[in-house]
Amino acid sequence: MDIAILLFPRLTALDAVGPYEVLQRLPGANVKFVAAERGSYRTEQNMLGLDADFATDEVTHADILLVPGGIGTRPLIEDQPTLEWIRAVDAGSQWTTSVCTGSLLLGAAGLLEGKKATTHWRVLDLLTQFGAIPVSERVVEQGKIITAAGVSSGIDMALTLAAHVAGDEVAQAIQLGIEYDPQPPFDCGSVAKAPEAVYQLALAGLARADTATR
Amino acid sequence: MDIAILLFPRLTALDAVGPYEVLQRLPGANVKFVAAERGSYRTEQNMLGLDADFATDEVTHADILLVPGGIGTRPLIEDQPTLEWIRAVDAGSQWTTSVCTGSLLLGAAGLLEGKKATTHWRVLDLLTQFGAIPVSERVVEQGKIITAAGVSSGIDMALTLAAHVAGDEVAQAIQLGIEYDPQPPFDCGSVAKAPEAVYQLALAGLARADTATR
Repeated sequence: MDIAILLFPRLTALDAVGPYEVLQRLPGANVKFVAAERGSYRTEQNMLGLDADFATDEVTHADILLVPGGIGTRPLIEDQPTLEWIRAVDAGSQWTTSVCTGSLLLGAAGLLEGKKATTHWRVLDLLTQFGAIPVSERVVEQGKIITAAGVSSGIDMALTLAAHVAGDEVAQAIQLGIEYDPQPPFDCGSVAKAPEAVYQLALAGLARADTATR
Repeated sequence: MDIAILLFPRLTALDAVGPYEVLQRLPGANVKFVAAERGSYRTEQNMLGLDADFATDEVTHADILLVPGGIGTRPLIEDQPTLEWIRAVDAGSQWTTSVCTGSLLLGAAGLLEGKKATTHWRVLDLLTQFGAIPVSERVVEQGKIITAAGVSSGIDMALTLAAHVAGDEVAQAIQLGIEYDPQPPFDCGSVAKAPEAVYQLALAGLARADTATR
């Protein structure tokens, strides 16, 4: 099973690596990290490089396509080669998925027209510009297209997908393998649950991160 | 705040990237990925490369040290330069932490003697050989040393640590920023909760992964 994960400058590392850690454990998984060109791609704050082993023109097919998010999605919304690659791989995929603002790229590629979709809570409204119907849920399934909410939600999305692809028992074994028995120290991981002060602090932190460089 | 995350061949990507995604959002965070030599380090199944920007001899101090796990920890248990580096950085750290089998390296470095500690459920007993007291908990705090259980537990550990370092409200804002409101599709992420068939399947998958190469 060929799994393509798109990399690009200023992606959010966990958007890609959370689902990767689940999907690479699927029987027969062959995960390919793909970018415009082969090489190292730096995350949002320039503190980590992830390696793309393949250029987009080397990967024309994937059973599963995963598009992560990050502030680096914004310029790509108008990058025709990237959008064309997403459309081309989607045309032959069994599953086309996104995490966080990766769904903005699926939308810009025209794949979310008339479909329910989600993204990071901060930019949920942006989905409407692509004809999508924003839904404040953690994992949104619309046929073969699955979008996940912000950053860490990709793990939940990938386990859901693993169950579709390989059955519940395999997905459960993967969940146990990565010991995913979450015990967050606080119950404030969604806008609905966070106090106003935490919400404002998170917004300010995200805004700073958008423009920060190391 | 200087944060050093150790990389090595055949690490588990999420062990490092889960906590990274939390800790890089701490005010003033400067995360350095460090390895024996600068360069790209491949994860367990050789499907992803993570870049070490720094060699161990370039980083002699960190406020937070994080040692991730993976099958690649096993040869390092006897690698004196790595263990000496861990001891040296720990000597000046405010916090010394591990995820998954990273605690075996803390143990081999002599840092867990007489202390409670945890690791991935599959190898919990191995901690005794280093004089540690194995504890089947997700996050185990012993003074400045914090060990986390398998793979995904590093996110919970890092949020706990973020609260110690920067206060509850900042940690909560980070949790909201990464939208960590986990909704796993199954409730089987710990040995205590998983059915026997899932446990056996997970064991078999992990054993295959130990020896697999892409």
